[in-house]
Amino acid sequence: MKSVTGGVTAAKGFNACGVAAGIKPSKKLDLALIVTDHPARAAGVLTTNRVKAASVLISQARLRRGRASAILINSGCANCLTGDAGRQDALRLTRAVARRLRIPENDVLVASTGLIGKRLPVERVLRAVPSLVKHVSRANHADAAQAILTTDLRIKEAAVETMIGGHRCRVGGMAKGAGMIAPSMATMLCVVTTDVVIAPALLRTLLRQATARTFNRITVDGDMSTNDTVFALASGDAGAVIRSTGTSARLFARTLETVMERLATLIVQDGEGVTRTMRVHVDGARTDRDAQACARQIANSPLVKTMLAGSDPNPGRIAAAAGASTARFDAARLEIAIGSHTIVANGMARLNNVAMLRRLLSRPAVTVRVNLHAGRGSGWMLASDLTEDYVRINAGYAT
Amino acid sequence: MKSVTGGVTAAKGFNACGVAAGIKPSKKLDLALIVTDHPARAAGVLTTNRVKAASVLISQARLRRGRASAILINSGCANCLTGDAGRQDALRLTRAVARRLRIPENDVLVASTGLIGKRLPVERVLRAVPSLVKHVSRANHADAAQAILTTDLRIKEAAVETMIGGHRCRVGGMAKGAGMIAPSMATMLCVVTTDVVIAPALLRTLLRQATARTFNRITVDGDMSTNDTVFALASGDAGAVIRSTGTSARLFARTLETVMERLATLIVQDGEGVTRTMRVHVDGARTDRDAQACARQIANSPLVKTMLAGSDPNPGRIAAAAGASTARFDAARLEIAIGSHTIVANGMARLNNVAMLRRLLSRPAVTVRVNLHAGRGSGWMLASDLTEDYVRINAGYAT
Repeated sequence: MKSVTGGVTAAKGFNACGVAAGIKPSKKLDLALIVTDHPARAAGVLTTNRVKAASVLISQARLRRGRASAILINSGCANCLTGDAGRQDALRLTRAVARRLRIPENDVLVASTGLIGKRLPVERVLRAVPSLVKHVSRANHADAAQAILTTDLRIKEAAVETMIGGHRCRVGGMAKGAGMIAPSMATMLCVVTTDVVIAPALLRTLLRQATARTFNRITVDGDMSTNDTVFALASGDAGAVIRSTGTSARLFARTLETVMERLATLIVQDGEGVTRTMRVHVDGARTDRDAQACARQIANSPLVKTMLAGSDPNPGRIAAAAGASTARFDAARLEIAIGSHTIVANGMARLNNVAMLRRLLSRPAVTVRVNLHAGRGSGWMLASDLTEDYVRINAGYAT
Repeated sequence: MKSVTGGVTAAKGFNACGVAAGIKPSKKLDLALIVTDHPARAAGVLTTNRVKAASVLISQARLRRGRASAILINSGCANCLTGDAGRQDALRLTRAVARRLRIPENDVLVASTGLIGKRLPVERVLRAVPSLVKHVSRANHADAAQAILTTDLRIKEAAVETMIGGHRCRVGGMAKGAGMIAPSMATMLCVVTTDVVIAPALLRTLLRQATARTFNRITVDGDMSTNDTVFALASGDAGAVIRSTGTSARLFARTLETVMERLATLIVQDGEGVTRTMRVHVDGARTDRDAQACARQIANSPLVKTMLAGSDPNPGRIAAAAGASTARFDAARLEIAIGSHTIVANGMARLNNVAMLRRLLSRPAVTVRVNLHAGRGSGWMLASDLTEDYVRINAGYAT
């Protein structure tokens, strides 16, 4: 498996672009389109929030058919809490794109991100559609990656190439994140594309698995949005056939997970106000579920996150978060390490080299290891710190 | 029911004081003692965190007897993650207090708050015990309330007087809070005292109920500590007899809850970096449990808390938090109001008077009302905002 450039158009059969449609007052790029050369296999994982954006509801229904030829994504407006009017807005846009591309309307998936509760400026966006369709190309992937951002500082792309069954094939993708990054599916948008041959049902299963192990393991603020969307499209142009059992499925699953993990890591690193990230590993739990619950509680704790922001070693906060989780363990056996340095052993704190621990906690990527000594279960989470900048960014967003 | 002064010694039969024992480097008051005139009925609600401070474990065991004559509380050191050595430290202190007071050692309850992972300076604290015991009096309640504080800015006392069965009786108390205030029992210390006559089992039941409706409904940062402690002592000196059924139990339960709710409100108002509080009411849920889960999710959302800090009306964040909770509802019927102003109706945002909403959100106490239109369940939470000051206070605490 090797890294390649090209993001969402790295795999064969995909074109993309991004334009400024005037949704964002800043005149930045805010409308992205991904178009396939011919109908692709499609799968998606969408938010489980009970309050869902109009675009989520539309895409959910269209994904049941397992195929798509285009994905339209706007930033600057979530098109959520907009009722039936918002739904009609989204339908008008996908209809306009379908007409221009001469494809069935149901072959257009849609996603939105941005402020909740405002209507899309549909007329303005409709006027941008001809130029959008005209500019799609394999070269314009970065514009598409740019056009889906909100408070993100950097575009997020990843792509890898691998050999499956003698065929050179690729998986590539783009994502946006920044705020509202939650433990139950990071609140974000992501599109992954691949040129393997795969049935929609299998693509969906593998996408769900990879999402559970990547986007569902990152946390910036523990909030979960109304617009979470992960789409996967498979063109089949590389010839590699992925079957539900055997080597091909394992290889493809690993490739897909690699791309999604890179995108997930980029999301945390670019979280609002984030200065460093922390990987929380929990081992020795009674079950993997216990380990994951423990890792999540630590990764979501505001006291642990502010500790990280201040590079201030505080075993008590990590232990308190572990103990507040549903994981079952004996506090007298608890072990906690920062990097390879033990700060709690047999349930007792030992802070003998604070200066060195401060240095470890000042690095851009910090590792915290917790051993519950209660079994063989393990799990992990990737978290950001919580800084004054996060609060500054989020205290004045809507109005 | 009328408010009275006197805090933890407002009821008959209690004396208190606070001294500086040298646990805090700042030389501030850090050791409190409450002493009863004669053995009192005792009950407690202690943290459910798997990692428990030494004092929690000791008090838990002693509370089984349902009686106590003294409570020793230190601030500046949580005596947690300190293993058996920490347990011996706490036992030496309660033994010294018991000897001076000429009471059985098991009649002394103990609680600690402060930094986790450090040992108590026992020799220094032992030297303070004679002066501590000497200065207990009914007048010194405010010193005791002062001595249990950590990052709190203000002392927290409340007391009320009421007539039960023809007897004038009182319930009073003191608390500390500030950081680590969590939805599953606010991380705090609290002592309530009363002069009614009540069996320990009934006192425990009513204390649990009142805790569920007061301290378990407040949140500053959603974290849960290793040292959470609520003690209740009943001297019986007022003569009012509380029976498990009938008017007396209802009257006493309401009085107890009034005092604890006042203390809980003071804790949120004095939360770290807090500039305003928000009461989240959820009505129309399928069950009370659904309503409470929804209120909790909203009250704990960092995005809602930062919105409150910035006085920035953002219906999407409240709706997204409601939808991320386990409460079952139809998003198309969701209704949200700030004060008496509806900002979401029939699942659609309507923000028609932003300037007025900003003013409402700038008040020290904000009310958010959510109606799920799914049933008759209701619940509420009291939350603080999340400010840059919270992060500043918590980024450099331990070392």
